[in-house]
Amino acid sequence: MKIVCSKTELQNRVNIVLKAVPAKSTMPILECLIIDVKSDTIKLIANDMELGIETIVKGEVIETGTVAINAKVFSEIIRKLPDNDVTIETDGNYLTTILCEKAKFAISGKSSEEFPYLPKVEKQNAVVLSQFTLKEIIRQTVFSISDNESNKIMTGELFEITGNELKVVSLDGHRISIRKIELKEEYEDIKVIVPGKTLIEVSKILSGEFTDEVNLYFTDKHIIFEFDNTVVLSRLIEGEYYKINQMLSSDYETKVTINKKELLSCIDRATLLIKETEKKPIIVKINDKNMELKMNSTIGSMDEEIDITKEGKDIVIGFNPKFLIEALRVIDDEEVDIYLINPKAPCFIRDKEERYIYLILPVNFNSAVQ
Amino acid sequence: MKIVCSKTELQNRVNIVLKAVPAKSTMPILECLIIDVKSDTIKLIANDMELGIETIVKGEVIETGTVAINAKVFSEIIRKLPDNDVTIETDGNYLTTILCEKAKFAISGKSSEEFPYLPKVEKQNAVVLSQFTLKEIIRQTVFSISDNESNKIMTGELFEITGNELKVVSLDGHRISIRKIELKEEYEDIKVIVPGKTLIEVSKILSGEFTDEVNLYFTDKHIIFEFDNTVVLSRLIEGEYYKINQMLSSDYETKVTINKKELLSCIDRATLLIKETEKKPIIVKINDKNMELKMNSTIGSMDEEIDITKEGKDIVIGFNPKFLIEALRVIDDEEVDIYLINPKAPCFIRDKEERYIYLILPVNFNSAVQ
Repeated sequence: MKIVCSKTELQNRVNIVLKAVPAKSTMPILECLIIDVKSDTIKLIANDMELGIETIVKGEVIETGTVAINAKVFSEIIRKLPDNDVTIETDGNYLTTILCEKAKFAISGKSSEEFPYLPKVEKQNAVVLSQFTLKEIIRQTVFSISDNESNKIMTGELFEITGNELKVVSLDGHRISIRKIELKEEYEDIKVIVPGKTLIEVSKILSGEFTDEVNLYFTDKHIIFEFDNTVVLSRLIEGEYYKINQMLSSDYETKVTINKKELLSCIDRATLLIKETEKKPIIVKINDKNMELKMNSTIGSMDEEIDITKEGKDIVIGFNPKFLIEALRVIDDEEVDIYLINPKAPCFIRDKEERYIYLILPVNFNSAVQ
Repeated sequence: MKIVCSKTELQNRVNIVLKAVPAKSTMPILECLIIDVKSDTIKLIANDMELGIETIVKGEVIETGTVAINAKVFSEIIRKLPDNDVTIETDGNYLTTILCEKAKFAISGKSSEEFPYLPKVEKQNAVVLSQFTLKEIIRQTVFSISDNESNKIMTGELFEITGNELKVVSLDGHRISIRKIELKEEYEDIKVIVPGKTLIEVSKILSGEFTDEVNLYFTDKHIIFEFDNTVVLSRLIEGEYYKINQMLSSDYETKVTINKKELLSCIDRATLLIKETEKKPIIVKINDKNMELKMNSTIGSMDEEIDITKEGKDIVIGFNPKFLIEALRVIDDEEVDIYLINPKAPCFIRDKEERYIYLILPVNFNSAVQ
């Protein structure tokens, strides 16, 4: 195997497949990336058995062949090479030579025989999105997946397509995040659970440009993301997702309209008073024209007021400040509407068209203390 | 005590004194900073018993007084306040209220009685330097102090003034760094050992501007840095510094002139092949017109050539690559001269005027393997 390509191109492509290389694995071959050179293409491949990535490197093929090479070592060498053409050559024993200007590295590779290549799946009916939209919708929901592996379904996100609407849902038992977007075309119904880890890694690779597209393909067991000469293939999580609609409600007793940035900064400041080991709620008191936020901890106390527009009853309710912060951070609107029922019922942050719904459960607090 | 000052000014000043707040201390009062308000000045003070810092905050004094307040909590609250005027007020029980726009924090403070205020020392004959020069000379030497507390003298740097020359020296048993600068005036002879930690913290506070000055004062036990309304006072390390001149030599068998950036990048790449637990030398082979650099490890091998100008004999010598990298990184010259004697004698990187001298001991290597 022998190829020549530019350092920058190679480095970019290596960084893409690195996302599917496990830090440690009981199968050493998974810590390798494959350089797979056919007469007309140079492909890099990595696979951690849940997530697999293939990407094409632009370059010149001098001799075909394949080699498996430690991904971490290879990527660090490439990163530190001078910014020029790189020649990579493998001999019969998989000893791999990397040449760039006067630098010459030799590292031992392996046969790619044992490597689990990505399964060939039949791709039908691409769902087309802009990279920007996919990256955004992941960012706006992925924070509320659970990292507790004992409940596998909560570690993933629901991707549900109905007609020309894509709905993405995540939940962790304390909160639910829902985002909806309109697709350019109508599609057949799809309802799958995509691993959160896959979405996090994919969103790191996506360019995030409006004008770049990504094609999604779905099979019984897999989701495929195709973009920029790259294919990401991930297993789906098996099982039935939660019945979200039963948890939602459009009734409310209190509706608050508030400046998002002011609210977010205020809650952010309140968290300064919480030590990592403590769980302290932020107490939200809604009066006619303002919202009063209070925090009391062993460090000290905070008290702040923000102007609001209110409909309905006064209410005092407590929240885990982190849940409010994470939802508010991914809402781009200048003003948000918050809907409340009573101090024990979930609160909803949602826009009029329900393009987003963030449900957050309140926490108990001793109102006598406040 | 009651004061008003701008958030930005307060934040900048808090960040300065934070450098003298220990992360953990058996004396809880040392984890506090003191706000000391006299009729005409607002002073912040912190002291970890080795290093003490006082700085003046521009602001309005409404009521004099002092309070000791947890430095970490206070700095985090200040950092997250809106960018506006901040009012700080302490009541008779040292409960401290921080007000900014609609935000109101209350945290409990302490009496400053137990706090070890900075000792009053008599300041004589300031040695005047630009902040740029002091910051640079610290950066160019401090990497080769030792962090082994069992040999206290090696954890500090020699500051030696003779006439109008300041010489700064650090060493760790494997290498010596020496920098000399010319002062604008003549001073009395001074020879002290300044703790490395002090220099690291001071260099973080220095603006690094050519036009800003810093005054140095020396006493038997202390060094004082005075600049920008800030006083940093540090204990000196007691004892006699090593006799450096006996270790230096201007004899050589081989002199190499080489492009610094090329050499640095090459050694940097070679270190990719070293695992953290491994100690592998880089082998430097000096031929007539080029320097060959080789590294062999369990990961792989590297071989690279760099053009040089040479005087004297050919030589093969091994070095800890880290020592070469750290010295080369702080040399600003495009080309450097390296002087060698034999594979067991120290090598010297120095300029013609000896404004800098970096001595590095070679390491043994099995030349048969190379």
